[in-house]
Amino acid sequence: MMRERPLRVALLGCGVVGSEVARIMTTHTDDLTARIGAPVELAGIAVRRTGRVRAGVPQELITTDATALVKRGDIDVVVEVIGGVEPARSLITAAFEHGASVVSANKALLAQDGAALHAAAEARGVDLYYEAAVAGAIPLIRPLRESLAGDKVNRVLGIVNGTTNFILDRMDSSGAGYSEALDEATALGYAEADPTADVEGFDAAAKAAILAGIAFHTRVRLDDVHREGMTEVTAADFASAKQMGCTIKLLAICERAADGRSVTARVHPAMIPLSHPLASVREAYNAVFVEADAAGQLMFYGPGAGGSPTASAVLGDLVAVCRNKLAASTGPGESAYTRLPVSPMGEVVTRYHISLDVADKPGVLAQVATVFAEHGVSIDTVRQQGKDGDASLVVVTHRATDAALSDTVRALRRLDTVRGVASMMRVEGE
Amino acid sequence: MMRERPLRVALLGCGVVGSEVARIMTTHTDDLTARIGAPVELAGIAVRRTGRVRAGVPQELITTDATALVKRGDIDVVVEVIGGVEPARSLITAAFEHGASVVSANKALLAQDGAALHAAAEARGVDLYYEAAVAGAIPLIRPLRESLAGDKVNRVLGIVNGTTNFILDRMDSSGAGYSEALDEATALGYAEADPTADVEGFDAAAKAAILAGIAFHTRVRLDDVHREGMTEVTAADFASAKQMGCTIKLLAICERAADGRSVTARVHPAMIPLSHPLASVREAYNAVFVEADAAGQLMFYGPGAGGSPTASAVLGDLVAVCRNKLAASTGPGESAYTRLPVSPMGEVVTRYHISLDVADKPGVLAQVATVFAEHGVSIDTVRQQGKDGDASLVVVTHRATDAALSDTVRALRRLDTVRGVASMMRVEGE
Repeated sequence: MMRERPLRVALLGCGVVGSEVARIMTTHTDDLTARIGAPVELAGIAVRRTGRVRAGVPQELITTDATALVKRGDIDVVVEVIGGVEPARSLITAAFEHGASVVSANKALLAQDGAALHAAAEARGVDLYYEAAVAGAIPLIRPLRESLAGDKVNRVLGIVNGTTNFILDRMDSSGAGYSEALDEATALGYAEADPTADVEGFDAAAKAAILAGIAFHTRVRLDDVHREGMTEVTAADFASAKQMGCTIKLLAICERAADGRSVTARVHPAMIPLSHPLASVREAYNAVFVEADAAGQLMFYGPGAGGSPTASAVLGDLVAVCRNKLAASTGPGESAYTRLPVSPMGEVVTRYHISLDVADKPGVLAQVATVFAEHGVSIDTVRQQGKDGDASLVVVTHRATDAALSDTVRALRRLDTVRGVASMMRVEGE
Repeated sequence: MMRERPLRVALLGCGVVGSEVARIMTTHTDDLTARIGAPVELAGIAVRRTGRVRAGVPQELITTDATALVKRGDIDVVVEVIGGVEPARSLITAAFEHGASVVSANKALLAQDGAALHAAAEARGVDLYYEAAVAGAIPLIRPLRESLAGDKVNRVLGIVNGTTNFILDRMDSSGAGYSEALDEATALGYAEADPTADVEGFDAAAKAAILAGIAFHTRVRLDDVHREGMTEVTAADFASAKQMGCTIKLLAICERAADGRSVTARVHPAMIPLSHPLASVREAYNAVFVEADAAGQLMFYGPGAGGSPTASAVLGDLVAVCRNKLAASTGPGESAYTRLPVSPMGEVVTRYHISLDVADKPGVLAQVATVFAEHGVSIDTVRQQGKDGDASLVVVTHRATDAALSDTVRALRRLDTVRGVASMMRVEGE
């Protein structure tokens, strides 16, 4: 009982991901048709410049007029893999206005304007799906939004950026510094020419905003996410981490506060114990832990980026959205009913690892310990190493608010006997 | 725009899982209502005996007449957590006939009668969901059925039974024998009084059938799954595994044949390298690898059983099924369009680890090697250890068909110089 007219798909963007989507759609047509329950057809592909279209992409479908393609009137689904805020936002909005559902891989746009886009989709009775926006092929949005819909998620903790994980993994295994590891990542194609979005944590922060919103059924925007990049992580930090039985990862962490009345979302480098499963996530892989009341601790692991894995996520969404079209229904939309506010970083409860360069004379440890005590921060371990009149002091704290911890560090810097704070890093995953 | 009449849910079974479903439904009503988009109400709970109903379960909802509950006429969703084939099958069928969707955790029933149940659901335009039937809280059915709907899955490999993983983990870490480790598992509540379904691999085989069917879009029944239990795994096997840098796990393996024309599904103990992520899955945890053309290698990890994790999966399905009811639509049903046949175990391509007790005299190795060669099985490594006129020979093969490998073992047993085959185990995950 297949319908005659095929579902028509407009593809916006034909780079690494888009060309793979086009390739699979044109070579696996029978499988897609069987799984959707109706034939599906690639109706047009919008690109910025026609000159650079890849081999295997049907040239007759190429257009540079994305707006005209979206407004054609016979498009059932728009697949947006351009990235960036504009023109993606205008094109997606136009797609909704013309009754098309949208599958997007655009984390930046969703982290900034997710609520408005969801509202626009809902107003037109169409779908907005974006599994590919977070962690490539790893199913995360759907498990959080659907599989855990009857549970209460308390924490999402993960590695959601492959570029930075590749760099940190190289620094860990080879002892290389940041620039050297970045050069290698660039040479191998893991880092872009301008790596800012990755290494400064913008990409991970956008994903954290999306995950936190879905996990806690509230609105979390990119601006709500505390973000620290990993460009200042040094070989010395890795050496310190090793002494503690840890490694360093750039983590995205979304948490429900202990009293349940607010949430936090943050991205920063952190030490995690080597025994933690995230410590063994190598190269450009991603992995995300989800902790929920009833389900307990779940982990999802896989390739977090790349043309094929991202295309897999896009096509999974495409099948779902097409099925919904056929059933004249829509999938779950935005769920933000808890309206939980996002607390600032100062309220996050965590642990610090602090390396201090201090004068090697009696009483220094007592002075330092007093500063911690005055700020209500309790010390877990101290390690002291002397050399030539100077000494280093490595302090690992118990859990305290990030505000108390950073106030402590500020006060330490003011001590005469403290020559400098060599490094300071949060410790997670224990 | 909430509808007035709540969605009514009948719960069949109120043991470890059912009581947790009832508890969450009655304590998290507001969350469920918000996520479904309409109020949901527990309308009745069918139990076998009223005497043993747990604390916290609303006593006024208890009935011993499951059939009458299902046929009441105002039930929107039936949640079946009784387990076993009958009366579950009749009750589910009656639920469909009365227009109710069904959420089930019943792997045995689904592995045996999945196709008929799907057809019955489809005929009535209702849903049959069963995320909880495989690997407890770990989202697997939904990712395979929906997230990977645009991809081609080639392999599913995993630990899907917590009881046997607990036993094998204990044997590995403590050097205990099977019976001793089983006793510990029983004492700690990880194994049932009659552990047959777990230790003989029936439970894992049912899950393998369900996963293979969904992964390859074909029909795979319990009888199609090659099944070997783990009761004969010895401390000596673990010692051999360690010498190879391996451990032993009971694995469920579903594969598409290299030529793409058939699939296989099997459950048996196997050696896997310690470097493989499945090797570090401890205690009663489950973990499943999924390999797909575009997505690459994905892993899903979490608690594979237990009341709360299973209830989480059941409630996720309940929310989905209720949403579908409200939208007057249904989720994806059975997808078996590829009609790929299931090949017998003999056609599986794998590797063997074989320990032989042989006479310690010249020429034995040559004899043994000849038998392998005659069966077209190529040897990867041989290790020979002599003691008091006897010797042991450990052979690890390259990949060959299971038929060729077992023919080889049969021929080896017939050699005069081979006193016995001490153990024989497949090697996977390389």
